[in-house]
Amino acid sequence: MNYKHIFSQAIDRLHSEGRYRVFIDILRNKGAFPNARCFHGHNGPKPITVWCSNDYLAMGQHPKVVAAMEEALHDVGAGSGGTRNIGGNTHYHVDLEAELADLHGKEAALLFTSGYVSNEATLSTLAKLLPGCIIYSDELNHASMIAGIRNSGCEKKVFRHNDVAHLRELLEESDPQAPKLIAFESVYSMDGDVAPIDALCDLADEFNALTYLDEVHAVGMYGPRGGGISDRDGVAQRLTIIEGTLGKAFGVMGGYIAADQMIIDVIRSYAPGFIFTTSLSPVLVAGALASVRHLKASSEERDGQQAAAATLKGMMRDAGLPVMPSVTHIVPLMVGDPVKAKKISDILLAEYGVYVQPINYPTVPRGTERLRFTPGPAHDEAMMRDLVSALVEIWDRMELQLAMAA
Amino acid sequence: MNYKHIFSQAIDRLHSEGRYRVFIDILRNKGAFPNARCFHGHNGPKPITVWCSNDYLAMGQHPKVVAAMEEALHDVGAGSGGTRNIGGNTHYHVDLEAELADLHGKEAALLFTSGYVSNEATLSTLAKLLPGCIIYSDELNHASMIAGIRNSGCEKKVFRHNDVAHLRELLEESDPQAPKLIAFESVYSMDGDVAPIDALCDLADEFNALTYLDEVHAVGMYGPRGGGISDRDGVAQRLTIIEGTLGKAFGVMGGYIAADQMIIDVIRSYAPGFIFTTSLSPVLVAGALASVRHLKASSEERDGQQAAAATLKGMMRDAGLPVMPSVTHIVPLMVGDPVKAKKISDILLAEYGVYVQPINYPTVPRGTERLRFTPGPAHDEAMMRDLVSALVEIWDRMELQLAMAA
Ligand SMILES: Cc1ncc(COP(=O)(O)O)c(C=O)c1O
Ligand SMILES: Cc1ncc(COP(=O)(O)O)c(C=O)c1O
Repeated sequence: MNYKHIFSQAIDRLHSEGRYRVFIDILRNKGAFPNARCFHGHNGPKPITVWCSNDYLAMGQHPKVVAAMEEALHDVGAGSGGTRNIGGNTHYHVDLEAELADLHGKEAALLFTSGYVSNEATLSTLAKLLPGCIIYSDELNHASMIAGIRNSGCEKKVFRHNDVAHLRELLEESDPQAPKLIAFESVYSMDGDVAPIDALCDLADEFNALTYLDEVHAVGMYGPRGGGISDRDGVAQRLTIIEGTLGKAFGVMGGYIAADQMIIDVIRSYAPGFIFTTSLSPVLVAGALASVRHLKASSEERDGQQAAAATLKGMMRDAGLPVMPSVTHIVPLMVGDPVKAKKISDILLAEYGVYVQPINYPTVPRGTERLRFTPGPAHDEAMMRDLVSALVEIWDRMELQLAMAA
Repeated sequence: MNYKHIFSQAIDRLHSEGRYRVFIDILRNKGAFPNARCFHGHNGPKPITVWCSNDYLAMGQHPKVVAAMEEALHDVGAGSGGTRNIGGNTHYHVDLEAELADLHGKEAALLFTSGYVSNEATLSTLAKLLPGCIIYSDELNHASMIAGIRNSGCEKKVFRHNDVAHLRELLEESDPQAPKLIAFESVYSMDGDVAPIDALCDLADEFNALTYLDEVHAVGMYGPRGGGISDRDGVAQRLTIIEGTLGKAFGVMGGYIAADQMIIDVIRSYAPGFIFTTSLSPVLVAGALASVRHLKASSEERDGQQAAAATLKGMMRDAGLPVMPSVTHIVPLMVGDPVKAKKISDILLAEYGVYVQPINYPTVPRGTERLRFTPGPAHDEAMMRDLVSALVEIWDRMELQLAMAA
């Protein structure tokens, strides 16, 4: 058994497919997002513009968030020092859970160390508690949901992306007595399309299924109070469990679910991924609390982001760039090849100070490699013009196709 | 299918076994650990002493840690804004990984959002990359290792706790050609005993197995630089992978592994739990960096903690309290019944302002429910005297057995 050989083969596979990942080493400039400095491939920091952050609303630099974190740091210190059950249940945690429950119109909420963990822990635990449970999973569900479903060990049926008719077929062919759970996302973050939540809930009612909605790319950003697409569409109360992150639009770190008191109590009591880990640092929780509260009351950031996304999409379309048909704040540009996507990204960073990461397999299906831009309220039109002209120049240089619209 | 009924039965089971968990709502007083305030069961905060924190060295309030976090917060903001691959790879992450690699004498290190995730993600991914892999797991391994092993889907053989002869038996009966991985902890945190690392590594050499050591309860605390028991015993280079947390002795939050460059590259490239999640907040990473650096150079905290633990154990033994035979900083007091353990904890909090959580199943085996004290350099002798006299008084009141030694 030659372990080294097996591991080096695993790495070689990535290189040969052009999808070996190189992490770009950066620091963002608080107060001046999306400006940042990059330490990659040269000595000392070089100024760049970040175009691929999931801190969609730049809340990571919001004065209220920063002030709340600073205050907590000085009041209670760096970490929680324990699991939620053993010394790590701070008053901040209790307050934030109440705030998140209210955000989604649910009885209760539960914090996890990340959105990933909230999905993995909740889905695996819920399904294990329901003997014979069948999980119906959208084919584009995030890796963390897939992990939770796999780790639950229960039967999984995958429905075609956002395809209500296909889900109906799968439900119809299942044992009517079996416990059922439908798991899906609201905003699919690599394409920017949106699930038909209402129609999926109709099916859940008809077939007596529970529903699990990942709103990771929508919380803070949609709905009058930032409760996500389910808030915007007024359907939050139809969903059994709504899951979200504190690490994207809320600008901090952590994850959560919101649901009925009893479901929260069950997950709290049975999920190893919740129980056996140091709880979120109170500094993060305090920051998230300030962020959620602010975005409940203010729509300025949401509006600014939607406007920026619409502007950038329009400018790209006008330039003939292959922007994909997203109906949300996500602006994906199709390349279709991992090596080319990486090359474009490398040129943008080295020559234009533009940082946008290539998105490759397994994050998106092979052959759909892309660049994914996330303009926010802090990206201005001059930055957008610079970006689009850089892209057009590179498209030209690499002899890629521009649409005739230009 | 009545979901509510199933969930309420699951909760009823916990109540009937006396192990339904109530989280105590607290805030620690930075600068005055282990003093804290408690919001549980009364109006407004009440002063308490925390006796069950895993911030073993009180690094969560160390001025260098707090200053580093404050600086990072103001320089780069609250969160990283992305996964490690997409915008979330800050210069702090790069620096901390280098520091941790050095701490353990390894080529490289990799950060995760928690120690739980580092165990789950690494073990499940490593074993999946090695077809036919057999994992040999100490029977008292932590839930996060058990989750990783289960989720790897590979064959698992459990050896009796710290039993080298039993592990040898299991290795001898296995296919010599199969890839093998031996997974264990250094300090077992509920009993306070220590693994025979050297002897386990001898077996690994003899049977060509990889080794995985969880040093979560030892990093920062043992060895001349705080590299854990493997540092203290001078055997770090014998281990394939060393895993640790930033959330206990380092006082912040997060987890990591340290190993050869190639293994780190493989886990970095293949582990969903590493890839598909927002990276640690740079604020936490900056704090952990300051903490690791400080504890590499200073043994004052380690020495203070060992002295406090020895003092408290001696005082408990002298009082006839059933302190378990721990050879480390952990001070467990056997109760043996979940209802009594909870009752003692409730009385301590309500009447004496002493916060120590009862430890029950599934954290420890049924019938071995206990109180677990973690005295640190900030617990003084007066606090210890108060604690011991309160315990003796409660033991008496509840008609529990005191040893004759008293
Ligand atoms: C749809 C979706 N769900 C969950 C997650 C995980 O959330 P977090 O980054 O908080 O772990 C992500 C991305 O990271 C995601 O894109
Ligand atoms: C042995 C052991 N490993 C891993 C962990 C998880 O570490 P973290 O709290 O950083 O998730 C814990 C406790 O939480 C533990 O006791």
